[in-house]
Amino acid sequence: MRDVAIIGAGETKYGEHWDKSLRDLAVEAGLKALEDAGIYAEDIQAMFGGNMSAGSFVGQDHVGALMADFAGLTETMIPAMRIESACASGAAALHAGYMAVASGLYDIVLVGGVEKMTDLPGDMVTDILAGAADREWEVFFGATFPALGAMMARRYMYEFGMTREQMALFPVIAHKHGALNPDAHFQREITVDTVLNSAMVADPLTIMNCSPVSDGAAAVVLAPAEIARKYTDSPIKISASTFANEYISLHSRESLVRSVSTIEAGKKAYRMAKKEPKDIDLVEIHDAFSIIAIIGLEDLGFAKKGEAHKLAEEGQLYYDGDLPYNPSGGLKAKGHPVGATGVGQVVEIVKQLRNEAGKRQVEDAKVGLTHNVGGIMTSSIIHILEVM
Amino acid sequence: MRDVAIIGAGETKYGEHWDKSLRDLAVEAGLKALEDAGIYAEDIQAMFGGNMSAGSFVGQDHVGALMADFAGLTETMIPAMRIESACASGAAALHAGYMAVASGLYDIVLVGGVEKMTDLPGDMVTDILAGAADREWEVFFGATFPALGAMMARRYMYEFGMTREQMALFPVIAHKHGALNPDAHFQREITVDTVLNSAMVADPLTIMNCSPVSDGAAAVVLAPAEIARKYTDSPIKISASTFANEYISLHSRESLVRSVSTIEAGKKAYRMAKKEPKDIDLVEIHDAFSIIAIIGLEDLGFAKKGEAHKLAEEGQLYYDGDLPYNPSGGLKAKGHPVGATGVGQVVEIVKQLRNEAGKRQVEDAKVGLTHNVGGIMTSSIIHILEVM
Repeated sequence: MRDVAIIGAGETKYGEHWDKSLRDLAVEAGLKALEDAGIYAEDIQAMFGGNMSAGSFVGQDHVGALMADFAGLTETMIPAMRIESACASGAAALHAGYMAVASGLYDIVLVGGVEKMTDLPGDMVTDILAGAADREWEVFFGATFPALGAMMARRYMYEFGMTREQMALFPVIAHKHGALNPDAHFQREITVDTVLNSAMVADPLTIMNCSPVSDGAAAVVLAPAEIARKYTDSPIKISASTFANEYISLHSRESLVRSVSTIEAGKKAYRMAKKEPKDIDLVEIHDAFSIIAIIGLEDLGFAKKGEAHKLAEEGQLYYDGDLPYNPSGGLKAKGHPVGATGVGQVVEIVKQLRNEAGKRQVEDAKVGLTHNVGGIMTSSIIHILEVM
Repeated sequence: MRDVAIIGAGETKYGEHWDKSLRDLAVEAGLKALEDAGIYAEDIQAMFGGNMSAGSFVGQDHVGALMADFAGLTETMIPAMRIESACASGAAALHAGYMAVASGLYDIVLVGGVEKMTDLPGDMVTDILAGAADREWEVFFGATFPALGAMMARRYMYEFGMTREQMALFPVIAHKHGALNPDAHFQREITVDTVLNSAMVADPLTIMNCSPVSDGAAAVVLAPAEIARKYTDSPIKISASTFANEYISLHSRESLVRSVSTIEAGKKAYRMAKKEPKDIDLVEIHDAFSIIAIIGLEDLGFAKKGEAHKLAEEGQLYYDGDLPYNPSGGLKAKGHPVGATGVGQVVEIVKQLRNEAGKRQVEDAKVGLTHNVGGIMTSSIIHILEVM
């Protein structure tokens, strides 16, 4: 199996792009990644596109072929397929692209992620997103994603005594970082009071504990590590690409305060990359809801169970702290165009490891980790990236 | 890169399964494939599920995770992702599974395909399927898939003088074979008159030139070829897995009577498998519309351009002819549950190569080819399978 490196990365601004369609966003990100890699469309040998629900959001399936066409990849008639794993579609596409290069079947591979969500009213978006849960056994009985997240948060607060004030620190950090990221959906800081006093979505989650509905796209170009320096002076090695799934429904699980899929994917990733949590310089954690980030940080070994909020209280999670967390702004402030998110997390780590992250640059970043989740922590996908 | 073999195969009956849900169908096919391979759920290391539009058909995305859960693959928390490439989603999933095993990252891999289409009225189904074309530049202006197919057929008739009677031979052959397949959606023979006199869908395509809306699922288990005999006495080698895309819209193409994606994927497949058309003992060709099968047969080198109908007239395409074509009944008679179709074609070839195809058994079958198409011949995916 060949080692795989990222030789280019690009993304759109995340937000409400009422003037841009699904294809506009995907093509913008894809071309930025090609330009960053210093290659042309005809150099790409295969494409994997993460997308959750373009069929429902904008009536468009066959997204891989459409993107290949509009990105100018049709002359070479390359393979292009869409990968879907709900909100982890982006990282799943990267896992597929990783295999494609590792196998030796393809050398230069484009991995993208895109979602166009803001063309529909909120209730329809909520219903489409609920398709990531079990439609027949959860959604049919009234559960939405915030409701499922709220049940996890409530149970967590009961078991470990975490307060709403403590949970509020996570979106505060996310917005602090988003304010430093010119591509973020939200670029203003908020306080704990903002979080506590904003509209309640599903008790105890206020709207400020929930990531927004965003449009956006992100893309990276992969190559065999052994030839990566032909394309760039700063290739980033994919040291681990791991993926685990557990029961889709909350009601099937033994615990509401742990994610066994995150634990499993994390363990495999550390083994694959020959790293431990202490070796990780910065993380992009899936904070669709604050509680998911909290459980994610713990289950990846960055805090003891029940204590992730202490990292926040101690200031460790800021980009200039001991464990820089979501320097991009995370799903909460950078935004959450669901199919793009997992690739966008990787784009942020690439920028950081190349020392190109501007005002939010993490000092001396050599190794980064991304945690992308599909469903209510059903699918967990981990990538560990490092400077070569 | 490792050689890859199929060690198990299974599928549901195709048809209108009003008593079975998406998950029921997928699990039935998956378990049949596991049983056929003589393995247990816990032996599977990764899963790739082809599905076009469950989000639109039944409100369910995150299909990979759902299938892994209900097939009992959650204890081992394996990676499971959905692959979408419109009506070629099944073959695209097999291409992804092939890479997964070839790369060395996973050994035993389950590849499935499923679609549950009959829960909605026909006009909604037609609209969802139109999502495989360009929604903004084709569908918005009134094109449906049969309309796009009809334009290709009309142009082909104009250029080569093929008659509707000649085109009608293809569904006649498909139904002849379907009548021999107990799992086919339609199991009765039809005549040229049936085709000509059935309801006109989009001139010159009558409803008998169009594949039906079907529910169904299919699955295969993959393993490295070098260990395949540990599991089965009759492993089937995947000698080629190739995939090409061209412009998604008909209006972008130079020709309406050729499929450059089929030509490209075919060329690559013959090269990869070190085979020529004359080495192929039987084929499963994508006959969503009769014209697509005609163009497919020609562009894969089985007939000169404009002459595929001669193969039909000469009787060569029957299962006991010189070029057994769609012995399963094809999309037309076996049925076309879009996400399942590509995997189902492979299941048929596996049965044939193992001499387990019952009344429609092709004599002395050693090498088979499948041709699965997404969109209006936008994506073409070829697999060549052979007895090891």
